[in-house]
Amino acid sequence: MFGIGVDLGATSVRMAVVNDQGEIMSKTRRWTESQRGVHNVINTLVEGIKEITEETSLSIHEMAGIGIGAAGQVHPVTGEVIFAPNLGWEHVPLKELLFSALQKSNPTRLSFPILVDNDVRVVTWGEYKYGAGKGKNTLICIFVGSGVGSGIIVEGKLLRGRDNVAGEVGHTIVKPDGFLCNCGNKGCLELYCGGLHLKNRTIREINSGRKSIVPEMVEYKLERITPEILHQAQERGDPLACELWNEAKHYLSIAVANLTTIFNPEMIILGGGVITSCRSLLPTVVATVKSNIHLLARNSVEIVESHLGDDAGVLGAAAMIFDEFK
Amino acid sequence: MFGIGVDLGATSVRMAVVNDQGEIMSKTRRWTESQRGVHNVINTLVEGIKEITEETSLSIHEMAGIGIGAAGQVHPVTGEVIFAPNLGWEHVPLKELLFSALQKSNPTRLSFPILVDNDVRVVTWGEYKYGAGKGKNTLICIFVGSGVGSGIIVEGKLLRGRDNVAGEVGHTIVKPDGFLCNCGNKGCLELYCGGLHLKNRTIREINSGRKSIVPEMVEYKLERITPEILHQAQERGDPLACELWNEAKHYLSIAVANLTTIFNPEMIILGGGVITSCRSLLPTVVATVKSNIHLLARNSVEIVESHLGDDAGVLGAAAMIFDEFK
Repeated sequence: MFGIGVDLGATSVRMAVVNDQGEIMSKTRRWTESQRGVHNVINTLVEGIKEITEETSLSIHEMAGIGIGAAGQVHPVTGEVIFAPNLGWEHVPLKELLFSALQKSNPTRLSFPILVDNDVRVVTWGEYKYGAGKGKNTLICIFVGSGVGSGIIVEGKLLRGRDNVAGEVGHTIVKPDGFLCNCGNKGCLELYCGGLHLKNRTIREINSGRKSIVPEMVEYKLERITPEILHQAQERGDPLACELWNEAKHYLSIAVANLTTIFNPEMIILGGGVITSCRSLLPTVVATVKSNIHLLARNSVEIVESHLGDDAGVLGAAAMIFDEFK
Repeated sequence: MFGIGVDLGATSVRMAVVNDQGEIMSKTRRWTESQRGVHNVINTLVEGIKEITEETSLSIHEMAGIGIGAAGQVHPVTGEVIFAPNLGWEHVPLKELLFSALQKSNPTRLSFPILVDNDVRVVTWGEYKYGAGKGKNTLICIFVGSGVGSGIIVEGKLLRGRDNVAGEVGHTIVKPDGFLCNCGNKGCLELYCGGLHLKNRTIREINSGRKSIVPEMVEYKLERITPEILHQAQERGDPLACELWNEAKHYLSIAVANLTTIFNPEMIILGGGVITSCRSLLPTVVATVKSNIHLLARNSVEIVESHLGDDAGVLGAAAMIFDEFK
């Protein structure tokens, strides 16, 4: 069986033809350029799908369907993107728009389904089906990128919750009376380890006169600060960078420890740009969680890095289609 | 259909004959006196079960089974109580012992099942089937008594986790670098709102010279301090009691807010002696969680007090039997 997986992010959109063993037969990547309008993005999807199916010599009619992970809040039944600030979208009927655009470019009637879900959930599903979490039943994926997203699988099912917003781990409070978050909370996890917040806090500290080697490292163009740069600064002993990373490690460890205590999961998978930039983050989290041998859940959980990297999205999106057909 | 529900606590054991509509046909309560040995407790159960079945004029053979909620860590398949510090039990094969004792006191062969589970999970199941959570799919019960226990139901199933220890909400960290807990963590929820810890902290503060009206209220017998006493002291404006309750409210609110953000549940049910002693605790938690209208999960969750009170355990225990037979 073959399916098409689409990973629709703010910067780029990845598309792949995948078989039901989780092997990528062909793939492509294009700029999302959502500022050019929804229809431009839809065209990008139609062209990309044409390219990757032609590359495999398969017809689009041989596809079991198209799965899409989109960065934002999604209605998994209607396939509408309800709110996606990074794409600048509100109430975009993605499934309908893509289906009718594909139908227009195909002379024969299309009859496959299109499934749309939140990107972090789709990536989690990818790791669960084909990646680090293969064979596990209950696991949590935490992705630390610009912000912090997560997907939770309980006994083989994605935790969705009443309003389909379960798993907002980035907005759990880890520091009572900490920094004020856009969400209205004080002390959200995301504020202490999300890449965007690490950058913004560095800029704030520097602007308020704090000494650091970071400005020189980015040739005084502070907008160029990235988690990689901050990690290099930490390795060179910069006190500001060390302080920020120590906080990131501390609060991420508390969040992982608490999720472990609540879910008693088999595995917690950490991924995203901040985890790959700062190689000492994962080992510190593991050591902190494992330091408590009295709580059985903390003793037994496996904490690992994601396996699929940038392919997790397209693989998870295609897997949604295969699972629908089982 | 009829079943027997048993709520085996450290102080008392409650037993009831329940029908499958969740109505109690007869019930009794006896002292547990676990210090007199396991066989004494088994005898108490056998006698109590005899009494309540006779009272309904039903034979024990007409029972669909016996469900037991026991205070401690339980193996739900073997029915063994693995570790129950409050009962002073370790590796007690409760299911086997009760079955063979009942068989001895009955001339004809017994053929019904006995199910044993953790007391907080059983109480949660009771609230879900017949109490505050009736008709809900995803809910969390938090019981604030001496310690803090919880049960989590996701899409109609109890969350158990890899080692059957999911839901240890009392040992989630709510105050980083807070008090050291017996479990090895620092800043566990239980340390800020569990009744035993409120009492111990009051005694510690008084012994270190802190002024308070509490000692006078308990005639200088500090071991008599209860959540009720502390609540009366708060109402009379005692600064120590006010400080402790404010902390309890603050950290319980954070825990409830975080569980809401993680699970996006339909309902959170709060129960237990500390909740009923301090009537301002629940409204404060509700107000704090609802103060964030930006997070949809916090906006939509219902936060209520448990409905079944002391009957939740026997009802939930009997319901386990009915659900097994569905």
